[in-house]
Amino acid sequence: MISLTVKEIARLVSGKIIGDENSIINSVAKIDEAKSGDLSFIYLPAYEKFQQTTKASALLVKPELQKTRNDITYIEVESPEKAFFLILREFFTPEFPLSGIDDTAFIHPEAKLGNNVSLGKNVVISKGCRIGDNTKIFHNTVLYEDVEIGNDCLIFSNISIREKCKIGNRVIIHSGTVIGSDGFGFNPDEKGVYQKIPQIGNVIIEDDVELGANVAIDRAALGATIIKRGTKIDNLVQIAHNVIIGEDTVISSQTGISGSTKVGNHVIIAGQVGIVGHIEIGDNVVLMAQSGISKSIKKPGYYFGYPAKELKTSQKLEAHIRNLPDYAEKIKKLEEEIKELKSKQSSQS
Amino acid sequence: MISLTVKEIARLVSGKIIGDENSIINSVAKIDEAKSGDLSFIYLPAYEKFQQTTKASALLVKPELQKTRNDITYIEVESPEKAFFLILREFFTPEFPLSGIDDTAFIHPEAKLGNNVSLGKNVVISKGCRIGDNTKIFHNTVLYEDVEIGNDCLIFSNISIREKCKIGNRVIIHSGTVIGSDGFGFNPDEKGVYQKIPQIGNVIIEDDVELGANVAIDRAALGATIIKRGTKIDNLVQIAHNVIIGEDTVISSQTGISGSTKVGNHVIIAGQVGIVGHIEIGDNVVLMAQSGISKSIKKPGYYFGYPAKELKTSQKLEAHIRNLPDYAEKIKKLEEEIKELKSKQSSQS
Amino acid sequence: MISLTVKEIARLVSGKIIGDENSIINSVAKIDEAKSGDLSFIYLPAYEKFQQTTKASALLVKPELQKTRNDITYIEVESPEKAFFLILREFFTPEFPLSGIDDTAFIHPEAKLGNNVSLGKNVVISKGCRIGDNTKIFHNTVLYEDVEIGNDCLIFSNISIREKCKIGNRVIIHSGTVIGSDGFGFNPDEKGVYQKIPQIGNVIIEDDVELGANVAIDRAALGATIIKRGTKIDNLVQIAHNVIIGEDTVISSQTGISGSTKVGNHVIIAGQVGIVGHIEIGDNVVLMAQSGISKSIKKPGYYFGYPAKELKTSQKLEAHIRNLPDYAEKIKKLEEEIKELKSKQSSQS
Repeated sequence: MISLTVKEIARLVSGKIIGDENSIINSVAKIDEAKSGDLSFIYLPAYEKFQQTTKASALLVKPELQKTRNDITYIEVESPEKAFFLILREFFTPEFPLSGIDDTAFIHPEAKLGNNVSLGKNVVISKGCRIGDNTKIFHNTVLYEDVEIGNDCLIFSNISIREKCKIGNRVIIHSGTVIGSDGFGFNPDEKGVYQKIPQIGNVIIEDDVELGANVAIDRAALGATIIKRGTKIDNLVQIAHNVIIGEDTVISSQTGISGSTKVGNHVIIAGQVGIVGHIEIGDNVVLMAQSGISKSIKKPGYYFGYPAKELKTSQKLEAHIRNLPDYAEKIKKLEEEIKELKSKQSSQS
Repeated sequence: MISLTVKEIARLVSGKIIGDENSIINSVAKIDEAKSGDLSFIYLPAYEKFQQTTKASALLVKPELQKTRNDITYIEVESPEKAFFLILREFFTPEFPLSGIDDTAFIHPEAKLGNNVSLGKNVVISKGCRIGDNTKIFHNTVLYEDVEIGNDCLIFSNISIREKCKIGNRVIIHSGTVIGSDGFGFNPDEKGVYQKIPQIGNVIIEDDVELGANVAIDRAALGATIIKRGTKIDNLVQIAHNVIIGEDTVISSQTGISGSTKVGNHVIIAGQVGIVGHIEIGDNVVLMAQSGISKSIKKPGYYFGYPAKELKTSQKLEAHIRNLPDYAEKIKKLEEEIKELKSKQSSQS
Repeated sequence: MISLTVKEIARLVSGKIIGDENSIINSVAKIDEAKSGDLSFIYLPAYEKFQQTTKASALLVKPELQKTRNDITYIEVESPEKAFFLILREFFTPEFPLSGIDDTAFIHPEAKLGNNVSLGKNVVISKGCRIGDNTKIFHNTVLYEDVEIGNDCLIFSNISIREKCKIGNRVIIHSGTVIGSDGFGFNPDEKGVYQKIPQIGNVIIEDDVELGANVAIDRAALGATIIKRGTKIDNLVQIAHNVIIGEDTVISSQTGISGSTKVGNHVIIAGQVGIVGHIEIGDNVVLMAQSGISKSIKKPGYYFGYPAKELKTSQKLEAHIRNLPDYAEKIKKLEEEIKELKSKQSSQS
């Protein structure tokens, strides 16, 4: 069990302590769910009302917050949210008890393991695999032949990594994800019967990438499907063969990216976006939820809709669509007025 | 093999037997696919034509149906569909032969199992887990540390349940599903490099929930992601961190619900719906397929579209959109007529 | 390692060799990524620029291409792309080293295996299963009771195939896929509490089908969910209970097909399409990405949108929507002009 004094915590975030600096913190919680021994935080006015009722032992607050409780230790910081995040990372990053090589794990004699590798139950490490130092691979995960994984990775359970795929350092892969399945490539013959195109490339996942649960990343037909450094991919995302994703890009759940498309750096893709194949999404583009992207986008900015347009355009058109009943009414009225005008005009002539 | 008399079946549904009450029923089938020994049913006029040709031994029918076959035993009931459903539940609910603890299953010495628990091949039960009576866990499923599962659950194969997650009684989880993977939470630093926010909450699945295949339910950042009693979730659904789903709610395949959103009770969500984070969907709301929900919805009723609107509004706007070519034509004609009117007017003046 | 002469390769594709017919080819690559020993190809003018810089040892080219390198062996063919595809299939189709029955695989005594079946680590073959000749089943895959799999199949890792499902010959199933999970069927009782409808049908996958990674195909309530011969299904696709998919149909990633819908032969379904239940999609229909299909479609052709319309209609309406700001402007101007005309008319009268 974690046991920290408020003093130790405040030191990390250069906070000013109001109250008992020796108060003991064991855990963290949301202010409305906190128990004794918990650290919590107030970062939005909406949460201030919980100051009176929270059972937290300590609170990160902005200096200007009026403190109303004597039984709570306050830590004043400019940004309680950022400070809380720093504390989480420093003191509360979960440690996984998996340690050592389980008896039921299989390691091919021609595989190489670094120092301090942990393998869970029934893990399969095939011929030619190389695994770096301190990497943990959880139960029932399968590495096919010649897979390379770097140092300090967390590879959770029930994952399949197909032959020749390469994973960098500090990569996290959540359960159920499949890396290196065959790309979806077929040629119809003269009868319309699809012939499989062998998919002989691989997948390269660079350093500091995180992949969610039940993600699918297909191997390239030729060459590599590449996820570059620092990119984060959410659950149930589809990455097709030969896609290249840049650095520090974020891809939210259930998005699908079709074959050979290139996505730039610092791109943000919201949930359920679909991107066609063979196009390019430039750096710093933001694609909003459920958008359908059928053409390359080079200009940074926000895009939305189906087919996607610049956000302002999309919003303007959506407003016009909502006005359609009004426009229809006006057209009708105009027709009547013209009719009347015509009839009067002819009576005048 | 199941062997029931028509008499036994009719008794369950209070049906009136026309024909041989000792006729033996071994199975159930659709009327057009039934074989000898099968029970089937006619509940829609469209299926009446199969009465002449079906090989079923018995048929559930409405009293008013004209019976044309002497070699079939009829069971008259007010609702053949409901009666068939009752019979299915009573006599044909599949029983899984999995029984006992397989030799290859791992049970940590500090885990606790109730009575009559069944564990399949290579199941992993980690330290601190508790499993209730009569629960069956199928092959290659992994429970991380301190997972709790109640009584009478069916946990199918290749499932990962991460540490500290809690599952109630009579819960069914289909294969490939991941519960308690890390929420998708990152903070960009000043260079735009994403720093992982530790996800130290858990997932709570209450009684009588059913989760489909390859579902992903993320653990909370703090606190819990909660699926309440009786809710049914279909395949490939994404539930993000800190989402709370109410009771008796239905979520169809490939829907995604973003972080911290709350969904009420008796909500029906069709397939491929996307819901943004930090909003609320009230009780008795129905979200139609592929809708995109970007704002809270409190009023019960049907919603559709992207962005979603009340169904009637959506349908009206869609009708207007289909009329757009006509409106454009009318505008053009109005312009011409005005031009003409103007020219006549100036000639008159 | 593969080692072929250009002569052997050229013979397969009836190509004319310009250069050293004894040049040795070990691998294939894209022209801009090729190394010495690689075969590559130029099929689009855009790639011609790489002729000068490529390190490939041999190139498939059209006869009319001007050849500029003496150190490359050229193979002239009418269609370099098709020829390359033939060569890939003939010489570079990956062979999986999995061979024999692993000690950790479980085979129930009442299961039957054909000749030359390969089973990976921790594979589970339950009672009553039958597996045909030359089929390979990779690590941690689970077959429940009475599953049948034909000859020459590749069943990758971490797959669950539920009881009684039937798989044909030459079927490929990628990792993480679930076949035969319960259909999503519930009846609400008078309190709105959902009662499970037992799903007692199965799934039938016919010959030459390929299923991607993390696909979910539900078993039928009654009867069978059927995927017919030659159909190819991409990653993360959802096929609900009692769906029937025809022959030689292609279904792209993240598409969902709801219960009891029938899809014809030679249908092409792009990514993220949603199809409601109980409808029919006829032969040779093409459904474009993200479309939402709420009604049966019988006429062959391209369909797009949400709700889907014939592509031409959709494109026309989309053009009108983009014109809406212009239409609104015109309506406003018309209103002003009419006002003016009226005022003049009354001043004239």
